[in-house]
Amino acid sequence: MAVLYERVALIGLGLIASSMAHAMKARGLAGEIVGFAKTEATRAAALEIGFCDRVEATAAKAVAGADLVVLAVPVGAMGEIAEEIGPHLAPGATVTDVGSVKQAVIAAVEPHLPEGVHFIAGHPIAGTEHSGPRSGFATLFENRWWLLTPEGADAGAVARLRALFEGFGAKVDEMDAAHHDLVLAVTSHTPHLIAYTMVGVADDLSRVTDSEVINYSAAGFRDFTRIAASDPTMWRDVFLTNKEATLEILGRFTEELFALQRAIRLGDGDHLHAYFTRTRAIRRGIIEAGQDTAAPDFGRSAVTAPKGG
Amino acid sequence: MAVLYERVALIGLGLIASSMAHAMKARGLAGEIVGFAKTEATRAAALEIGFCDRVEATAAKAVAGADLVVLAVPVGAMGEIAEEIGPHLAPGATVTDVGSVKQAVIAAVEPHLPEGVHFIAGHPIAGTEHSGPRSGFATLFENRWWLLTPEGADAGAVARLRALFEGFGAKVDEMDAAHHDLVLAVTSHTPHLIAYTMVGVADDLSRVTDSEVINYSAAGFRDFTRIAASDPTMWRDVFLTNKEATLEILGRFTEELFALQRAIRLGDGDHLHAYFTRTRAIRRGIIEAGQDTAAPDFGRSAVTAPKGG
Repeated sequence: MAVLYERVALIGLGLIASSMAHAMKARGLAGEIVGFAKTEATRAAALEIGFCDRVEATAAKAVAGADLVVLAVPVGAMGEIAEEIGPHLAPGATVTDVGSVKQAVIAAVEPHLPEGVHFIAGHPIAGTEHSGPRSGFATLFENRWWLLTPEGADAGAVARLRALFEGFGAKVDEMDAAHHDLVLAVTSHTPHLIAYTMVGVADDLSRVTDSEVINYSAAGFRDFTRIAASDPTMWRDVFLTNKEATLEILGRFTEELFALQRAIRLGDGDHLHAYFTRTRAIRRGIIEAGQDTAAPDFGRSAVTAPKGG
Repeated sequence: MAVLYERVALIGLGLIASSMAHAMKARGLAGEIVGFAKTEATRAAALEIGFCDRVEATAAKAVAGADLVVLAVPVGAMGEIAEEIGPHLAPGATVTDVGSVKQAVIAAVEPHLPEGVHFIAGHPIAGTEHSGPRSGFATLFENRWWLLTPEGADAGAVARLRALFEGFGAKVDEMDAAHHDLVLAVTSHTPHLIAYTMVGVADDLSRVTDSEVINYSAAGFRDFTRIAASDPTMWRDVFLTNKEATLEILGRFTEELFALQRAIRLGDGDHLHAYFTRTRAIRRGIIEAGQDTAAPDFGRSAVTAPKGG
């Protein structure tokens, strides 16, 4: 593929940024890749693994002369970074971010960017429960969505950025930032909070010893622990910055949970059966939309099991 | 391996029973395998796939002459089946079940069994989100736990049944039925209820269209939908029959969730960060206990990704 940006500055070198760098290198989408991370160890890892051509000890130095700057730090750190790099951005450069919340990032970053710089907020819906510079890989974004909330940014700059993400194999969509934050509160933020809570409850129960919870972690709980192993700083910032939507969805969740709890208490089997039947349909939709496979994931050791054999 | 039972009767021919049959056939652990299922279609499928040597149109006929009878029907149907088969059981036969709840099954089944029949309640902690006779496979139980709550059953009968399950590759443990029900309320039943609830909430939200919830189903929600796609009848019965333990754990869950919700509302980032850090540890324990792998499951398309490459 053709080089889309001559110099890309990655601010933050965790799972997402390192995966972007791997993808840009694998597909020849960028000229030079410059990296910045807060710790010396992370910068050294980026050079050792080789996904950055050069690292800098400050974000201001890293963005100098870059035509694309990617803010890949926790959402709560975006404002401070934007303030630092603002005066050093090249005229006409594009700045994007990969934060899981969009309204708060836009509010924190935009005031610090000079005229003539294109800010296009973004969010790749991709990741693993691992974090750090060694967790990235080039195919992370393949067949995943990359949502942009450009809020009136220059059409040419948006098209060029879309081409980059499509070059990673991602599907790109544009939407309003407030809508993004509500959709993600449903599909990601609230589920994460619930998983964290359930794992915390299990950890608290002294009558159920640790080893039992771990040994007998049936499908349900095992999946929750994977979710609850995600990066604590990233998730703290998500909840603090997408507060309203998360609290709204949590309110709906609690209401429904109490209705099901009441059905259990009253022995209302019809209510439970009808509810559980309805939720099966949405799973079929996800498989049809290509967001997951129908392989029986609970029986992990048996992913190659023949159908009906 | 040696034949452990000359004739095994499987009452119910869904995911668990069909997987047991495949495992018995693959490893030569049983003589004849006789099956019973409520519907003609399921019985025909069992013969067509070949995991049963013979099927019968009534449970009473299926258990005649069997030295092992496996009750693999939803927990709420166990009592009625036990009442039907009780008079037809061979002297000295072993009866076991595979229900996810143990106290309620023991209470429903035991009164119907004649003297001289060994009842050893059991629960394989294995499964997928699929159900029915075509969903089974021989390796489902490999490296999974099979919990027994023998409550004073004959030691020789227990040892023989253990040998069968160990022959499937399962790890077998024995415990008190009440303790089993509490542990499973934590590791399986409550997480399932929560997943069902979250998927139901998403389905209800008219402002977030179906296709958006499905298309942008990030890791958290996607895993919830897999859990919430499990068999509705089985899960209805679990909640109705393990009511006390589930309601107790739900109470703890709600308490913790409200504390985290309050931290979000108040902007208490330290509380959130500390909580999310603590839950990471239990995930490491599960990986070390061999109940799951460290492969980055969120990025499903990239399971073969090289480490740090």
